[in-house]
Order: sequence, then structure tokens, then C-alpha cells
Amino acid sequence: MQITISSGKTLDGSGEENLLRTLKKGGIYLASSCGGKGTCGKCRLKIVEGRYRTAPSGKLSSKDTASGIVLACQTFPESDIVLDIPKESHIVVGDVLEMSRVSDLLASFRSSGGSLSPLVEWVRLRMDPPTIDDNISDLERLRKNLDAVGCENMRFPHGVIASLADSLREASWHIQLGYTEGPEAVMVKPVSRCGKAGLAIDIGTTTIVLYLVNLDDGSLVDACSTYNSQIRIGDDVITRIVYATESGGVAELQEIVVNDLNTLLLSLAEKHGVRLDEIESAVVAGNTTMTHLFWGLPPGYIREEPYTPTVNFFPLWPAKTVGLKIADLAPIYTMPCVASYVGGDIVAGVLASGMHRRSGISLFMDIGTNGEIVVGNREWLVTAACSAGPCFEGSGIRHGMRATEGAIEAVAIDHSTLAPAVRVIGNGPPIGICGSGMIDAVTELFLAGALDRKGNFIIERAPGRIREGDEGLEFVIGSNGGRDIVLTEVDIENILRAKAALFAGVSLLLKKVGLALDSIERVYIAGGFGNYLNVEKAIVMGMLPDLPRDKFRFLGNTAIAGAYLCLLSAEKRAEAEEIARKMTNVELSVSKRFMDEYLSALFLPHTDTSLFPSVENLLEKI
Amino acid sequence: MQITISSGKTLDGSGEENLLRTLKKGGIYLASSCGGKGTCGKCRLKIVEGRYRTAPSGKLSSKDTASGIVLACQTFPESDIVLDIPKESHIVVGDVLEMSRVSDLLASFRSSGGSLSPLVEWVRLRMDPPTIDDNISDLERLRKNLDAVGCENMRFPHGVIASLADSLREASWHIQLGYTEGPEAVMVKPVSRCGKAGLAIDIGTTTIVLYLVNLDDGSLVDACSTYNSQIRIGDDVITRIVYATESGGVAELQEIVVNDLNTLLLSLAEKHGVRLDEIESAVVAGNTTMTHLFWGLPPGYIREEPYTPTVNFFPLWPAKTVGLKIADLAPIYTMPCVASYVGGDIVAGVLASGMHRRSGISLFMDIGTNGEIVVGNREWLVTAACSAGPCFEGSGIRHGMRATEGAIEAVAIDHSTLAPAVRVIGNGPPIGICGSGMIDAVTELFLAGALDRKGNFIIERAPGRIREGDEGLEFVIGSNGGRDIVLTEVDIENILRAKAALFAGVSLLLKKVGLALDSIERVYIAGGFGNYLNVEKAIVMGMLPDLPRDKFRFLGNTAIAGAYLCLLSAEKRAEAEEIARKMTNVELSVSKRFMDEYLSALFLPHTDTSLFPSVENLLEKI
Repeated sequence: MQITISSGKTLDGSGEENLLRTLKKGGIYLASSCGGKGTCGKCRLKIVEGRYRTAPSGKLSSKDTASGIVLACQTFPESDIVLDIPKESHIVVGDVLEMSRVSDLLASFRSSGGSLSPLVEWVRLRMDPPTIDDNISDLERLRKNLDAVGCENMRFPHGVIASLADSLREASWHIQLGYTEGPEAVMVKPVSRCGKAGLAIDIGTTTIVLYLVNLDDGSLVDACSTYNSQIRIGDDVITRIVYATESGGVAELQEIVVNDLNTLLLSLAEKHGVRLDEIESAVVAGNTTMTHLFWGLPPGYIREEPYTPTVNFFPLWPAKTVGLKIADLAPIYTMPCVASYVGGDIVAGVLASGMHRRSGISLFMDIGTNGEIVVGNREWLVTAACSAGPCFEGSGIRHGMRATEGAIEAVAIDHSTLAPAVRVIGNGPPIGICGSGMIDAVTELFLAGALDRKGNFIIERAPGRIREGDEGLEFVIGSNGGRDIVLTEVDIENILRAKAALFAGVSLLLKKVGLALDSIERVYIAGGFGNYLNVEKAIVMGMLPDLPRDKFRFLGNTAIAGAYLCLLSAEKRAEAEEIARKMTNVELSVSKRFMDEYLSALFLPHTDTSLFPSVENLLEKI
Repeated sequence: MQITISSGKTLDGSGEENLLRTLKKGGIYLASSCGGKGTCGKCRLKIVEGRYRTAPSGKLSSKDTASGIVLACQTFPESDIVLDIPKESHIVVGDVLEMSRVSDLLASFRSSGGSLSPLVEWVRLRMDPPTIDDNISDLERLRKNLDAVGCENMRFPHGVIASLADSLREASWHIQLGYTEGPEAVMVKPVSRCGKAGLAIDIGTTTIVLYLVNLDDGSLVDACSTYNSQIRIGDDVITRIVYATESGGVAELQEIVVNDLNTLLLSLAEKHGVRLDEIESAVVAGNTTMTHLFWGLPPGYIREEPYTPTVNFFPLWPAKTVGLKIADLAPIYTMPCVASYVGGDIVAGVLASGMHRRSGISLFMDIGTNGEIVVGNREWLVTAACSAGPCFEGSGIRHGMRATEGAIEAVAIDHSTLAPAVRVIGNGPPIGICGSGMIDAVTELFLAGALDRKGNFIIERAPGRIREGDEGLEFVIGSNGGRDIVLTEVDIENILRAKAALFAGVSLLLKKVGLALDSIERVYIAGGFGNYLNVEKAIVMGMLPDLPRDKFRFLGNTAIAGAYLCLLSAEKRAEAEEIARKMTNVELSVSKRFMDEYLSALFLPHTDTSLFPSVENLLEKI
């Protein structure tokens, strides 16, 4: 039987095999934390066509059932099937873009003399077993052996001691002991058991990314990502903070995000045969609210004047504190935050960019849900947040998606016929459109005269291609089988708002620090745009400042990149703390001038075209 | 309606009030961890006479129900009732003996220049609240304030930070922070909330004792005790170790003992209006196995050659580790152990006796279930254990009980008529007989010619008083209403075994260290004997060596006394560690000579009467 995913792929199924399993065989991972028992309710699918049998589930409403929503693990095809995978069910495992980007990062870390110094250090001990004449306790014996190698005053948490007697004997007294700062013991295992692994985690408001890293050589084993399920509480940080102030809200939000992480972890562990209880450390990067929620700290005071987080510089706490399913006592390092609206993700971004080590002035823009900007050099760093919204991560856009396989990442539009040509990540049929594709599409439509400067469609320009849809006018960018992928006027409004917030943030921050645009030596662009962001088009749209193109560097997801570097290296952790201490936060949202700048930037490219001389030139030519 | 406890007391009851409540009003505490919901199954009673209504319970077998066993919290009288309280249901709260003994201990601690230095130290901080110009995170603000008073590098466990934001604001930034060694934060509370409390805990194989201590002045708020419910797994340490090696055994034994402690705690908290989550620290004393089980450490290797405990010197671990219902992060100090069969209870005992500070040689005997002996002075300490058995704590003796209200603690027997005269703790009707009463009774029966030297009744001596019972011959010591309190020949056999083990231990240990009896300057006797132990009679019985009577000091329960001292003082904790390091353990049980000594000591007073010249004299006179 054929199982066709409406976004294009077709797999071989069987009446004896549930859909979760069939999809997994085809490399399509769905969220599932119960391992296919039908109890977690995460692997939701919509059956569009075909006959199937499925078990009833308390996790599905009658409305769900009526509209063909099923749990993949409980559903068996009885004919050929066409199905839709909702965004939130989808986990991306084995992201090739991430893999290649990380190998560059590791190479540059190594070439600049970086050496591996993860959070957990290991010492090997060959101990004499006890005898009737030397029967001191196991812990005293261990301490004596540690003292002999200069490892003194080790702190032993209960969890290490609870299994110590058996661990020592199973290892025939030839052990390796992992410890973290304190020094505090993390785990004891036989010397024969090798392979050290750690996690780098980026908890975005919209997207969660997780790297499984080989700590023997620093290489990336695999990368995976999913949407942050907290989205079901609300798209933005503020809604979640409000929710967290209700009784049980913090615990619920924490559980949601930890569940997401554990779901990703379980997929990776299964794929790579990794023992979760031997993953020895993790680094978490997130904005201040996401970080607080991950640790179960009430974030309420973040949004109340005077906007104080509970913690900016987090102690190392063990994984079991939050229920992350790695070694119980694995230390989790949290990327330090700067202020309520400037978090560890930005500190990680600056670290990954290296701007904090350059003498020239750089501009760093992280184009995520919150839209943070940093200006500075190795002497000083100033930062601001500008609430861009989640549209470039695919949220709030009709056919928006993250920059993963199936996303339209680049769009060219024929200026006379308006015929679009697209590039799709993975080169398969398109499923949706990601941030870089959106920027291309809007800019191309504008340059082709199909959008006016306010972002409204000029329908007369191409009545065939611009059509009336459910939500007003829309443009068909691509199609896949019978399904059109469109960009609506509402989508474009959202995109313009996001780019306006970013540009307004950059303008105002530069004014605040008294810098002219041309004093910027380099612009670093971060965000989950996939391979690639067309800087030229982003400038035409008015999202990026009109600077010589060779000043721009596109870095991808820098939050996870910075977390990855900190997982590898104590030096990088020290740098991150230095960055966080040095960075000054400027509050933009309270400023009336920000609103003025924002309104001016809502046009294509801007109300004040003199700010975009190269775009003015280009438009004149057309 | 009248509720009569068969041991003597009568209370007013009502058909509207369950028996648990009625008993509590009358000062009789039953074990209950569910607070009277009928779910824990601990408050078992036997209804001997009268009508009642009760709810069915899954915690009762059909055999229980048939024999009148009910849960007190689910049972309401419908007529006058006569009931029996099983030993294991009974909690003793507000032990007057303990109260007076502790006040002596505290006075002597003070007079020897001891000052209070509990496990948790406190620092008071008046912090400036955050403003928009000074909105660093709460933790950074706290650290700044701590630095200003010289309290640097504090470690902050997650539990302190999880509630930090609210704690600081509720206290209007005027707080006290408690911390323990590390330094590591334990809790934050408003300066206005005063009253510091801690716990001293003695986990005996048979009996559990708990002190609630006021840490502002060191005074005892209350003392309470109960049987160790692990008894239902087995009376002795070995049975429990074997049980612990089965799957889930360690966790079950740990849960049982922690439940007992929490049951005691809840009774105390209710009686004194104490907030459990503000009890800031605890000290636990127990033998090595009890200590391992309390911490959930597998004790299996304790009884396998070469007899290695997992830990002798325990780190401080927080209360939540074991589920003790005091402040989550309250540090628990564990009295250090010496070896597999010489535990923290003995170290506590030596500490309480002060023998480790004297230049003359002392003999210390702890007459508990295991029967430990220490010989030494401030230079050296040698110890041995001799498995006396639990009979002096009331276990394994027909009408045996602990030295609490209602126990016959002293017995005199008219040498011609054999009529007994008894003294009862609390001066009410007798419920049973405790260790000191047993020693008196056996000795008096022997001196009166009603027992031969092997401990057999000479029935001809008093056919009326010595009678045939269910388990052979027995002697009626007292009676209460219609119920006789007897000592059976089986009981006497058990008592002789216990005293023989103790005496054999003392003899052999002295021989091993090459000391004659008369080099002993002082003999300290420890054990849960209540007020009092008649040394003269214990010597006649052959339990204690025949030394001048003024060399003996009776100290009561020294395990809890030592734990109490360590709760008060860092100096005492250091002394305890010094004692544990200094003490040498001698393994007696493996020695053939021990068996010889034991068999010789099974007589009254001993096969070799030359060892007991004063007793020989006395017997000649009679």
C-alpha cells in the first residue's frame, strides 16, 4: 500500500505496520514521547484520503476524529493513504545543513588553537580491592585514590554514592570518575566503557534545536529540531509569562519544553544507539524567559517594572533537576543572560560571531522571534531587542515553515510574466516556505511591480497569478501535487512588520550609541534561514541596512553554535560570561522614537529612500 | 461512652468521634502517616469488647477483621469499648525521661564552654530593591550583598533559586539566608520569621527516637519514639540486609524508616505548631546498616567478606534526598561509622560519655539490639560488637516493651513469699516490662531461689506464683485489670543469652587489649532502659563485670544524646569524626574464643563464679 504525504513524499506501507513506524522507516520522524503506546498523543496526523483502522484515543477530540486526525502509532492503513503531517508533529532529525555548518565551526575553533575542555573532566583510577585487613569503606578508598592523583576535596552527591558499591565492583576497581567544577563527582564507570557525549540545546521561543556532540573529538553526531510546543500556550514570550503567573503555569511550561527535548533525545538515542544515561553534560541557550521556564523559575518579574530576571548567571545544576533524560547528575551549563529581554541566545550569538574579539565595530542581528541586535567590538557591546515576531521561523505565515527539508528557501520571479522559480531545501517537492524564501518572494514581487510600497498586491499587474483566496489576495509561489503554496497579503503584512521592527531597532540603536552606518565594518546575520539568506534582497526589502554587500556574513543559528562552543570549551564559557558582563542593554520598546522609526520602516524599502541609495538606484533602473 | 485501653487508661469517647482522635485527646499517639484518611493502615487497634462501626480497609486482612483488628481512624464506638493497642501502633510523644536527661546534657555542654554552632549558619541582609537603573538579576543582587558582608562564593542549589524571586519580595528585601558548609545556601526567609529548629535522630534496629530541638538556645522542645517498622521484615540486621539484596528491597526498607520518622515528625509538628519546612537541619545516628538503609545505600557488602560499608564518613546531603519532611535542602549530618558492625550510634555514644577526653581507661557498653562495647581513653579506643539481641528493648519478650509510660522498670521480690513489688514508669497501671525491669526480675527470682543457675524455674519453690502458661512455665510479675504480666521461661532464656553475649564481649575485648578488669576506671552503660538501671542486680545476673559500684555511670540512650550534641555544635561534630578515625574495630563473632566465653556466661551469674567475688559473697550469705 502506498502512503503519500501530501507535501510530496510517497512510502511503502502495510496493513500490519502502524503509520508512525512506516514514516520513521522513510526518515520522517514524528514527535512521540511514549514510544508508540498511544498515550502521549503527540504523533497526530491528518488522513486526507484512504481507508484505515485506528484505536480510539482520549488524546483526540470528537472534532479531531471527525476531521480525520489520528495518532500515527495507533493507525494502520487499509488502502492507499494520503496524509498531512501537522507542523507540530514533525521532528527534524539529521539536519544536513547543521552538520556542515558545525564542521566549519569546529575547524575554525581548532585552527584558532581551541582545545577540548568540556564541563565534565575524567580521572582514571586503578584501585586495590578491599581485603579483611584493609576494609575501609568504598568512599574512603575512592578518596584515598583520588588524593593520590591530586584530586582532593571532591564533593560526592548522593546519586553517585547510591550506586558506588556496585559500580566499583562491576568495574573490578578499575574505574573512571567524571567530575565537574567544585570539584563535584558526576558519575563513576568502568574504564572499559568509552565514548563521551554531550548536548547543545537552543530553546527558541518558536524552535528548539538540539545537537548531540561527541566529546572525544568535538564532532557533531547529529542535529535535530522541532517546534517549541509552548506555542500552544501562545506565540510570544509575553503570553507565556502571563500564563506562567497562573497557578501551576510555570511547572506546565517547563514540562512542555523538557518533553520536547526528551522527545528529540529519544529519537536521536534510537537512531544512534546512544545510552542516554551516559550523556555527561549539556549547554542550554535561550532568551531570558525561555531560560527561566526551562529551569522552572517564575518569569513574572521579567515583564514587570523594573524588569528583573531571577538569574542572569546560572549556577551549574544537574539534569535531573528538570527531568532531562540524560545522566542524572550531568551538569547543565546555561548561557548567561544580560537582562530581561536580552538572553543567553544573544550572548551565544556574539560568541559564535567572534565580534567580541575584533577591534572594528560589528553589527550583529539575530532574526528570531524576538529580533535582537548587538553593536560593538572587543571593548564594548550594546544590545537591544525589537520583537520582530516569529514569521521568519514560519509561524503566523499561511504556508510558513522552518528552514528544513521541503522548504522553499529561494525565489526568483520573472519580472514580465511573474512566473516564479524556486529552490527547495533537499531538492524535493516544496512543502512550504521558510524565512529566506519569504524575503526573496516579497522583494521579487515588489521589484516586478506586483506589490506596492505598502505591501499591497497590485492585482491588475497579473490577474492570473494574484488571486482571491480565503484570506484575501494571494500569490501562488509553487505547488506540489494538487496543493498550491501561496503567500497571502496577510503574510506580507506580517513580514513587513517583522522587517520594520528589525530595521527600526538597528537605526535607533546606532543613533543611541552615536554611530553612523558607515562606521560598521561587518554585519553578522543570524537566524534559522537555512543555507542562505539573500542579503541583496533583504536590503531591497529594507530589512538590512544599505551597506556594501561584502560587509555581510550570514551565520545561521548562532544560539546553538555558541552553545556548542561552550559545550566544548572552558575558555569559550569564560568568554561567554565576559560578553554577558560587558554587554549593555538599551530598552527600545519603551521609546516613542522606536514607534516612529518602526512606522517609517513599514514601507518597501522605507519611507525615507535616501537611507537606501543602492535600492533607489536599482528602482530607477527598473 | 467509655473507651478503656486494656493496659489501664480510660477515656471519654463519642459515637461521632473516631478512636484515633479520642486517643490523641487522651495523650495517646498512634502511628498515622495519612492524617486519619484510612489509607496508611498504621493506626491498627484490637477491639476486645464492645460494639463499633468501622469502614472496610484494604490494609486489613480477613484474619485481622475476624480477630477484631480495626483502623482507629475509621472506627467509631457504639457502646463502651475495651481495646488493645499493639506495640507497633504506639508512638510515644513527650517523653519526660528524655526531657530531663537532655537538660542535664545541655547544662554540662554549656558549663564546659560549648557554644551553639548548628549545621546551618544565618546571615541577615537588608538589600536595596531593584530600580529601572539598577535591575541586575535577583541572584546577582543577592551575591553582591553577600560579598559585602564577606560571604563569598556561595553555592546556590536550584531549590533555593526556584523560590528566590518571591522570597525576596515577600520579605521586602530584608532577609536572612541560611547556609551550610560549602558554603551552600539552604533557605531564604524574611528576617521577621524567627525560631530555628533541628532534629536529632536515633535509628535503632528496634527503636527510633527523635528529638525536636530549639536551635536558638539548644533546648529540647520534645522527644518522641516508636518501634522501627523494619521489624516486620526481620528483628535483626542480617535479615534486613538479606532482604535489601532483593529487587526493590533497599528502597522499601528506606521508605519504611523514613515513614516512621515522618510519622513522628507530623505528631510533633501538630502538637507544637512547628512548620516542618523550616526545620533547618538534622543529625542521624544509627549502626552502619541502619545508616546505609536510611540513605538508601545497598548494605549487601556489609555482611560479605571483607565487610566493607559503602561509606563511613558521610557527606552532608539534603533532606529531600530521602524524603524526610523538613526543609528540602536542610543538611543532614550522619554520625560517622567505624566499620560494618560498628556504627555512628557507638561513635555518638562515646561522644556523649566523654570517655574520649579522659586520661583513665573507661569501658562503654551500649546495650541495644547489637550490643557494642568500647574500651579506651583519650589516646586510643577499641571496639567490638556482640549481637545481644533486642530483648532489652522489649522485642522477643512476651510482655516486653520499651522504657516508656506503663513499663515496669523495677522489680523487688519478697524472698520468702515471692510476692513481687513493682515500680511503673509514670506511676500508672503496668502495661508491660522493660529492660531494667527484666534484669531486676531475673536477678530477684534467682536470689529468691525460684530460678536455678541455668535460668530454669524451680516450680517447687512457689507453685502458686510459678505456673504453667501457653509457652511453658511463667512467673506473674504484675497485673492490670484482668490481664497478668508475666515473665516466661522462654523470656528468661532470651535474657540470659543477651547478657551472656554482652559479658562475653567485654571479657574477650579486655583480653584482646591485655587489660585486667581493675584497670577500668569507669563503666558507662548506655541503652533505652528508662530512668534507671540497677547496676547491683545487673552484676548479680552476670551482665556487668563485678567492679566497685561507684565506677558505673548509667547514661540512657547515648546514640540520640551524641546526635543531639552534634546538632548543636561544630566542635562536637569534629570530635565525633576524631573518635571514628581513632576507633579500632575487633571482630569477635568470627572468634572461637567468643563462643567459649559466651557459653560460660550463660549461667547465673557465670560458670566461673570467681569472676564475681561480690556475688559469691552475697549468695553465700543467702
